[in-house]
Amino acid sequence: MTDRRRVVIVGAGFGGLAAAKRLEREDVDVTLVDRHNFHTFLPLLYQVATAGLNAADVGYVVRGVFRREQQVRFRKDEVVGVDWDARTVDLAAEGPVPFDHLVVAAGSSTNYFGVDGAREHAFPLYSLEDAVRVRNHLLSLFEAADSEPGLVDDGVLNFVVVGGGPTGVEVAGALVELIEKVLEQDFHDLDVHRARVILVEQADRLLAPFSASSQRYARKTLVRRGVEVRLGTAVERIAVDHVALSSGEVLRTRLVLWAAGVRAGVLADRLGVEQGPGGRITVGDDLSIEGHPEAFAIGDIADIADDSGGRLPQLAQVAIQGGTHAAEQVLADIDGRPRTPFRYHDKGTMATIGRRAAVAEIPRRGGRARVLHGGAAWLAWLGLHLVYLVGVRNRLSVLTSWAWNYLTWDRGPRLILRPEVLPHSPRVEPDARPPSHGPGAPAPLLNPDRAPG
Amino acid sequence: MTDRRRVVIVGAGFGGLAAAKRLEREDVDVTLVDRHNFHTFLPLLYQVATAGLNAADVGYVVRGVFRREQQVRFRKDEVVGVDWDARTVDLAAEGPVPFDHLVVAAGSSTNYFGVDGAREHAFPLYSLEDAVRVRNHLLSLFEAADSEPGLVDDGVLNFVVVGGGPTGVEVAGALVELIEKVLEQDFHDLDVHRARVILVEQADRLLAPFSASSQRYARKTLVRRGVEVRLGTAVERIAVDHVALSSGEVLRTRLVLWAAGVRAGVLADRLGVEQGPGGRITVGDDLSIEGHPEAFAIGDIADIADDSGGRLPQLAQVAIQGGTHAAEQVLADIDGRPRTPFRYHDKGTMATIGRRAAVAEIPRRGGRARVLHGGAAWLAWLGLHLVYLVGVRNRLSVLTSWAWNYLTWDRGPRLILRPEVLPHSPRVEPDARPPSHGPGAPAPLLNPDRAPG
Repeated sequence: MTDRRRVVIVGAGFGGLAAAKRLEREDVDVTLVDRHNFHTFLPLLYQVATAGLNAADVGYVVRGVFRREQQVRFRKDEVVGVDWDARTVDLAAEGPVPFDHLVVAAGSSTNYFGVDGAREHAFPLYSLEDAVRVRNHLLSLFEAADSEPGLVDDGVLNFVVVGGGPTGVEVAGALVELIEKVLEQDFHDLDVHRARVILVEQADRLLAPFSASSQRYARKTLVRRGVEVRLGTAVERIAVDHVALSSGEVLRTRLVLWAAGVRAGVLADRLGVEQGPGGRITVGDDLSIEGHPEAFAIGDIADIADDSGGRLPQLAQVAIQGGTHAAEQVLADIDGRPRTPFRYHDKGTMATIGRRAAVAEIPRRGGRARVLHGGAAWLAWLGLHLVYLVGVRNRLSVLTSWAWNYLTWDRGPRLILRPEVLPHSPRVEPDARPPSHGPGAPAPLLNPDRAPG
Repeated sequence: MTDRRRVVIVGAGFGGLAAAKRLEREDVDVTLVDRHNFHTFLPLLYQVATAGLNAADVGYVVRGVFRREQQVRFRKDEVVGVDWDARTVDLAAEGPVPFDHLVVAAGSSTNYFGVDGAREHAFPLYSLEDAVRVRNHLLSLFEAADSEPGLVDDGVLNFVVVGGGPTGVEVAGALVELIEKVLEQDFHDLDVHRARVILVEQADRLLAPFSASSQRYARKTLVRRGVEVRLGTAVERIAVDHVALSSGEVLRTRLVLWAAGVRAGVLADRLGVEQGPGGRITVGDDLSIEGHPEAFAIGDIADIADDSGGRLPQLAQVAIQGGTHAAEQVLADIDGRPRTPFRYHDKGTMATIGRRAAVAEIPRRGGRARVLHGGAAWLAWLGLHLVYLVGVRNRLSVLTSWAWNYLTWDRGPRLILRPEVLPHSPRVEPDARPPSHGPGAPAPLLNPDRAPG
């Protein structure tokens, strides 16, 4: 039989890209589908949101990855559903695409945990569009306060970050740096020091998966740099101009960053398969989907058991290793070899707090994890992120930006740029529709009778 | 008297920036107003539109230019009008701002010359938002054609550039390069060679202000590189899916780039002052506005007579020199010195056609202009644009991008990124309203029953 197996991979994140890379030189036809035409390097999104990096630095065009691989076909399209009987993936623009093997790597979406007003008013930080939207809004708030200083009393310069995990810690740390070091010089007439960054975490510690000493270091460093850390505090309600906390405190604010958690991507709900906590797809030890041995789920969208009976975290490494594993199971099937169980190799976790401050924990064989704090961890963080970034050009550009920011205390991309206020040909682009998790229309910020007429 | 004179400068383009720079260390209070928070390097917009440069490379945050100059106050705001009796500029967000001297440097806007459908369906290229919109749409058309190859028959890969001036020539040249060298490798399954770039010019030659030999060189080079050049041909009508030419030809297309000309910025119409051709503000030989000696108009928005009874062209150099001159007239007034007439020093003009191909004409004292074609002109063009770009970081970034593009035949920023489909707090941002010159909503590109449900 000369027919090559058709493998459809849904999602060009870390997992989908790893699976496609593993298959690119094998004797299979790969169709890789993503609703964006680029891979997003999620770990650096917060630097786009805080004007440290260009949007283009953390996005890499998928077609650019597979320019020389004729058998990897990319489709910028959206998956509407899967017909398990017909073995087709239904794409919004192209229609049904047949597969022999399917790899579902559609990532996560924001989890608002049903908090009142969160979906309408909080800003998620889970796509490049999200990051650019946060940056535009953040800088616009400073411009508004500069035009009308009375707005500062209304909380226009209060920034609330919800969630004390790595994303929340990173974005809070980057925010104070941007405000204290950069915007303070940009806005001569504005008392920038009245700006507040408040990090709210429900648990009684930051960085839950890290050791107690890393948690203390992160908290101490953030507080010393000017972040107000509220531990043991839940968000009860988010409105257009304030946040109500479980402590009874009401914070006036126009920018609530939601970094409290993720759930499985919406596609997981459309497949008619078994789902675990957070809507994640239940998989067997070979990462195949329950009841559909020809299909795999990997990365953030998959609910993968770890050795100790818990669940693997939603990390880039889990997705990358899972993607490679799923691809290898496909090859094993083709060759008639038995499948193998997925073994996750924990390479450690890191979080950065700001300039020369990070935490890193690297597991050691049979012993306690190696724990790094401060400058060494920060350098390790920089190096590792450069290595995992896709594309030489993006690496060069990020390295240049970091060196520039570090040496000059400046930041480059502080443009407020809204190219798509009037979107063109929305029907061409499935993703031109309002994102399902996007915030609604918030209240006017300026006095209505001063609004441009 | 210790009161410092208040100078309001409207527009942070080449002219407004030059005026503010000239005044930044003088004993005056400067308020610089722009509806964007960044200066746009217009000569390189076409490279953003054709995925050669990042949007952030050609925009520079105005506040970054004046970080150390406390007496230059920036306002991201929109000018609603000027009250000449009260001597105030009325800003949309901040309200009236008093001035002793006013410099109007609000640039141009697209001139559609009343062509039927142009305003609704053509894409202008006169702001960074325009450029990003063109890039998104252009790349989306290739994605659409890849999903549904039948669309190529409908003209989805026909790109029509209207106007054979420098902008039209540059964008047509860059388009064929992008398609032939980059997209041809990105789209394995698509017959990219079916894409057409058609340049339509009403006159019987390209690059009207250049010499006949440069005009011939530009045409020959474009044709050799694959651009279809239609001279002596006017555009009669633009519709959602086609363009009708004066020759009777109807071209099917979904992307018409409008590079046919500019008129004065809309502000010129709101000032109640005398206007010349294209709505440009009539000025005296010191660049002051007729009837308002305390106010100046410079750059694209001003109608400036040249020595031979004609009008100065709408070029960066005219704006820069005019900005400096207006600032010097303000200082002359303050010091009680007489005003001086504006003398434009023509440093020459250039246009680039593509890789190693450009034309440059540099005037020589008392003789014919020095004319350069090809690689030397191209290098001169590269160097000069790097010099005039604002900000060391942007220069570094552009230089890196150019070197990368040149050496690898790759282009970086091919992301289709639409961050503001759902704009946040539109009331904060005057420019969040649909641009007055933006195209309307074009027809659906894909078959309606294939549109995402």
